[in-house]
Amino acid sequence: MDKLDFVALANQYKTELFENVVPFWMNNSLDTSHGGYFTCLDQSGKVFDTDKFVWLQARQVWLFAMLYNKVEQKQEWLDVALNGARFLEKYGHDKSYNWYFSLTREGKPLVQPYNIFSNTFATMAFGQLSLATDNQHFAKISKLTFDRILERKDNPKGVYNKAFPGTRPLKNFALPMILCNLSLEIEHLLDARLVNETVDNVITEVLDVFYNKDYQLILENVQIDGRFSDTFDGRLLNPGHAIEAMWFIMDLGVRLDRKDLIKKAKNIILQTLEYGWDKKFGGIFYFMDIKGHPPQQLEWDQKLWWVHIETLISLLKGYQLTGDKKCLEWFHKVHDYTWSHFKDTEHGEWFGYLNRQGEILLPLKGGKWKGCFHVPRGLYQCWKTLEKIAENNNYRGR
Amino acid sequence: MDKLDFVALANQYKTELFENVVPFWMNNSLDTSHGGYFTCLDQSGKVFDTDKFVWLQARQVWLFAMLYNKVEQKQEWLDVALNGARFLEKYGHDKSYNWYFSLTREGKPLVQPYNIFSNTFATMAFGQLSLATDNQHFAKISKLTFDRILERKDNPKGVYNKAFPGTRPLKNFALPMILCNLSLEIEHLLDARLVNETVDNVITEVLDVFYNKDYQLILENVQIDGRFSDTFDGRLLNPGHAIEAMWFIMDLGVRLDRKDLIKKAKNIILQTLEYGWDKKFGGIFYFMDIKGHPPQQLEWDQKLWWVHIETLISLLKGYQLTGDKKCLEWFHKVHDYTWSHFKDTEHGEWFGYLNRQGEILLPLKGGKWKGCFHVPRGLYQCWKTLEKIAENNNYRGR
Repeated sequence: MDKLDFVALANQYKTELFENVVPFWMNNSLDTSHGGYFTCLDQSGKVFDTDKFVWLQARQVWLFAMLYNKVEQKQEWLDVALNGARFLEKYGHDKSYNWYFSLTREGKPLVQPYNIFSNTFATMAFGQLSLATDNQHFAKISKLTFDRILERKDNPKGVYNKAFPGTRPLKNFALPMILCNLSLEIEHLLDARLVNETVDNVITEVLDVFYNKDYQLILENVQIDGRFSDTFDGRLLNPGHAIEAMWFIMDLGVRLDRKDLIKKAKNIILQTLEYGWDKKFGGIFYFMDIKGHPPQQLEWDQKLWWVHIETLISLLKGYQLTGDKKCLEWFHKVHDYTWSHFKDTEHGEWFGYLNRQGEILLPLKGGKWKGCFHVPRGLYQCWKTLEKIAENNNYRGR
Repeated sequence: MDKLDFVALANQYKTELFENVVPFWMNNSLDTSHGGYFTCLDQSGKVFDTDKFVWLQARQVWLFAMLYNKVEQKQEWLDVALNGARFLEKYGHDKSYNWYFSLTREGKPLVQPYNIFSNTFATMAFGQLSLATDNQHFAKISKLTFDRILERKDNPKGVYNKAFPGTRPLKNFALPMILCNLSLEIEHLLDARLVNETVDNVITEVLDVFYNKDYQLILENVQIDGRFSDTFDGRLLNPGHAIEAMWFIMDLGVRLDRKDLIKKAKNIILQTLEYGWDKKFGGIFYFMDIKGHPPQQLEWDQKLWWVHIETLISLLKGYQLTGDKKCLEWFHKVHDYTWSHFKDTEHGEWFGYLNRQGEILLPLKGGKWKGCFHVPRGLYQCWKTLEKIAENNNYRGR
């Protein structure tokens, strides 16, 4: 593959971001009466439900603040971010920075702050926005929310935890995985020692504890001491989740100048794809059981947008940082599947949920879990990584 | 359709029950070391996980006690029921008859008693077993467990309820629906006034409150005052759930000699089937949105065993009690789909989970939610109802 292909690909991702996806959300998601965003959008972008999910509100604030910080200081992008941030600041938390899971259109709390990831995405949102605005108030919200995460991290569900204490204590992959990303996201707000401690800890958790050497795959849940648990939760794999975490690890590898981390992450990406790719219909499975038993998740064989987009990012970063041609071969395969199945050429933006056969399962563009996040973040990350690959090739070519 | 067809059909259901399904569970599910039952069984009946889910433990106790009470006083059936009952009695609850959701193989509590349906199935199990054994101790367990249900019924999830109080109070269809069935199940243990009060109340809830006159369908959730809630929860339909409830209502209609209830229930069955039947691939959808919006449930289009089996019972009872030929037409259609898609002709018992196309999604015979309950109960109910239809025809024919 020569330089020109990478330039063309970079342009494809960039064009999709700025001419399709960003306009779709700017045109359809803004609640100009109450603030915040509508995320339940049908195929054409029409609002079909007005509930506001804090994960998605925060992620959209982050996305537009990130574009403002990293691409161009467009006032209209900052305005979109502020529209969500002001709503969230006023209604999103219990005044102690425990963020609710969902709110009514007007901002009344619907679901209690049982879900720690509402906090992680609020931390990201206000951290990125504090960079965009240089507003110390936003920085403070981010920092105080992050403190709540650290306080809650050993029992994230708190009083809503239904596990009987002591019988089968497990820990879950999602929090260390998100903390990999978050520790870089809000580095500017944290004490250097806290960042280093957090980073060291999450790298060990992700690459040594949740990574199972026997299977060479990352598990969603392990025993507190790191041992394998031969139970439904312990056998659970989420290939997209594991692959997404690997680009967070590679970003940390670049930041810490640790080639060992990058190489290990790249290998895990390739192993996980070999295991998680559907040889019959194409695409990556949503959930699997590491021993091949039936998983509890009835949606196990579905093909989800974020799984495929995060995989594209990881493969490109893997190729850019290690030069392993296998990353490029897989990238072409996943790229073809993703663009031909998820992109809606008729009404804009991308579908989120396909069945195993790759047909549309739900025609929505946004809902309770899909908002303005994985598609534009992925397009941005792929665009920038493809540009770097093209530059490297150019440099090598001279 | 003449008398002989009904006799042959009755025999088909009876034979399947006693020559396939009951032996499958007797051969594969008994934990002879620790008591209780294995329910996570693969296609061939082999145990793939040993966790014990209280819903399924209690339902299997009920099923074998019911066969003993209603079909034949076989000691081996009573022994199977007692094997589960002794395990449940010892390990299943917190000593105040709040029943855990799940236990380890040995009986240690895994998941707290957050789910009120663990109580409803324990009530059924010990109620039916008290009839089989004339043991007042089992009767007492059933009665005390039922008291806990009545105490908890206005906030079934208790401390595990994640809804923020007051913002959008909804009530759910499942509890009144189960109480329809439970009030007849343990009538022998309750004060007649309590039975009458409960029955009156649940009939109103099911047929007037959750039944939406505009749509002519039963909703899964309504506002406390019975109004429609135009939200994800408020728009949710579960056709199998609504249709199952209708045979509980028809049983109450027989018990109370109220033809109006029977007729209304029969009409709801037919309306729900028209709405919930998949015109493209056949089978009944699992979840739908009453306004046609995308539901939150990713498994919405799957075809589940219990949905189809409960529908067969309701259609046969509807035909037997009202003579409406539409019930019979639908019965043939659902019968053909069910037997050709769910029955495993190779390894015995029935599959539980098919995709929209009717292909096997999970090859298991039992898991977290599928145990020894809907298939044998449905075969028993269809067998006995077909016998009644055959007798009626015979009588008419003379």
